[in-house]
Amino acid sequence: MSEFELDGRIARDSDLIATLDLCQLRIQNDSRWPWLVMVPQRADMTEIFELSEADHALLSAEVNHVAAALKEITCATKINVGALGNIVRQLHVHVIARFEGDANWPGPIWGYGSAEPYDSEKRQALVNTLMEKLSR
Amino acid sequence: MSEFELDGRIARDSDLIATLDLCQLRIQNDSRWPWLVMVPQRADMTEIFELSEADHALLSAEVNHVAAALKEITCATKINVGALGNIVRQLHVHVIARFEGDANWPGPIWGYGSAEPYDSEKRQALVNTLMEKLSR
Repeated sequence: MSEFELDGRIARDSDLIATLDLCQLRIQNDSRWPWLVMVPQRADMTEIFELSEADHALLSAEVNHVAAALKEITCATKINVGALGNIVRQLHVHVIARFEGDANWPGPIWGYGSAEPYDSEKRQALVNTLMEKLSR
Repeated sequence: MSEFELDGRIARDSDLIATLDLCQLRIQNDSRWPWLVMVPQRADMTEIFELSEADHALLSAEVNHVAAALKEITCATKINVGALGNIVRQLHVHVIARFEGDANWPGPIWGYGSAEPYDSEKRQALVNTLMEKLSR
């Protein structure tokens, strides 16, 4: 069995903010939306249903926990959760805070326009608030 | 506690094909993609993390089962799973079979173009094959 290795495009487009039991929790380098990416640290996974039952339960619990925290800290109108993988095949789950009137509301964020860089202080504040909420 | 009632837009845009333990399993009236919609039959739910722990486990298992079956019967390049809800707030999960070169590949299907009606025989064949696979 090969070892988990993060896809290079995910590595380039997002930064690691925490390592959970199963997933790398990462923040997308795009200030248009609070946008998290969760990557199960298992090799050769493409579809959620390829995970073992135990890993699938862990992924569901971790995504739920992160989504609830993201909603609470951002007061988002709606959380969008998606596992697409049409471009990057390594299994990853997007968790995004959406707001009425945001850059592509109410359409999906994937494939829309170009990433906009974060002000590093704002990004750090978001990460700190999220990590505080997750640790409670 | 109010009773579950299907959102009128989901009712209009998709047809019921099976009632699972938790979800209505529905097929979207759009022949561009084999596109299923799963609606937990629980009142007043908007986000996945609002479900009880038991319901959440059921939803995860049902989505997994359906996604795996859809991939197998369609030989899709990739299954897309998403819970957005920016327009219709009633909690629902999309499970879509995607193919290289399909109508909006590799972009997301949501908000893209207009639905195209099914040839009713083709639609029925897809539903029959899916139901057979799910019942095994």
